[in-house]
Amino acid sequence: MTRDAMEYTAPFISIEGMDGAGKTSVLNSISAWVEQQGYPCMLTREPGGTPLAEEVRDLILAPREETMHPDTELLLMLAARNQHVKTHIQPLLAQGVWVISDRFYDASYAYQGGGRGMDMQRIHQLHDWVLADFQPQLTLLLDLPVNLGKARVAGRGEAETRFETEKLAFFEAVRSAYLARAYAEPERIVVIDASQTQTQVQAAIIACLEHRFLS
Amino acid sequence: MTRDAMEYTAPFISIEGMDGAGKTSVLNSISAWVEQQGYPCMLTREPGGTPLAEEVRDLILAPREETMHPDTELLLMLAARNQHVKTHIQPLLAQGVWVISDRFYDASYAYQGGGRGMDMQRIHQLHDWVLADFQPQLTLLLDLPVNLGKARVAGRGEAETRFETEKLAFFEAVRSAYLARAYAEPERIVVIDASQTQTQVQAAIIACLEHRFLS
Repeated sequence: MTRDAMEYTAPFISIEGMDGAGKTSVLNSISAWVEQQGYPCMLTREPGGTPLAEEVRDLILAPREETMHPDTELLLMLAARNQHVKTHIQPLLAQGVWVISDRFYDASYAYQGGGRGMDMQRIHQLHDWVLADFQPQLTLLLDLPVNLGKARVAGRGEAETRFETEKLAFFEAVRSAYLARAYAEPERIVVIDASQTQTQVQAAIIACLEHRFLS
Repeated sequence: MTRDAMEYTAPFISIEGMDGAGKTSVLNSISAWVEQQGYPCMLTREPGGTPLAEEVRDLILAPREETMHPDTELLLMLAARNQHVKTHIQPLLAQGVWVISDRFYDASYAYQGGGRGMDMQRIHQLHDWVLADFQPQLTLLLDLPVNLGKARVAGRGEAETRFETEKLAFFEAVRSAYLARAYAEPERIVVIDASQTQTQVQAAIIACLEHRFLS
């Protein structure tokens, strides 16, 4: 982040990874760290983040008989993302509030691109239309083997969403697409080994934040 | 329509115009005419046309406290349109079924572009992403003065949607944008004077269909 950008807006941080990677506890650790530094901080999530975007999220995630065309899914994701960014995230950043989001646009490349096999260039074109050059200053990718994530989710005993009922190959493709994004943008995306203990993951996150925002 | 296109798919016809212009009776007239010619015919509408697209329609039209960002509205419209075209309209056309839609993409240029003042080029970019070169062979634009349309709608005594609560200037801009579309694409879009009696409008519609599809 340049000094100029710092003068106008607070940092926007996204947490990425599959269900079971431990995103929730990482979000809480970051929030606590930001507040320790004396800054206001808001947690949010995608898809969702505003009442309308949450309604769109429900449409996307609900199991249904009608097959959702892949382009429909991406357009709904971006409708929710547009509402979230332009009516919630950007106004908060402009007021100096740090915003930490449970998933952001890398998830579209991972799930729709990697998982569903949608052309990455088409995903890019739509994001360019919606976001132009807006992106997180820092993205933490919580990476772990697919089987381990599935086992952790199964342990929660919650009802499965339309995504969670996908097969293992789908999740392997999602993981690969996430890692490919991190490889392409090493300055923005930091990969965290989420198969470590929660204490180890937290230590890695805090070290990353200190390096990025205090040094 | 070229002879080549006729060999592969049935015609796709859209009816455009503001509420109160008489779209419903025109749809029924066209449907009856097509069936008289011995072809199967399906009526549909936008936004909507499939169960999922109808759910998106409900999201778009419901009055709500949260301000819907104009880009969010357009993305939702195009999510519904994509689902409608790719899972419903195109498969029907490929089977030789004529499809008549109560509104299609000209409505986005009229309502989001004209009414809400969104940049027409941005609307075009998003449609290009979703539809590429798919468009109706024929569009009938039912044009009438804004006050007359409002008076007809008021006579129905139905609850107002989020669009119907807009001010007169909004509807004047919608009407102008529709007419500008017709001026730019005179081969596809035929303007019908909807302030005439229902009998006169029907006669104009049938004359148009005979000229376009029988001569």
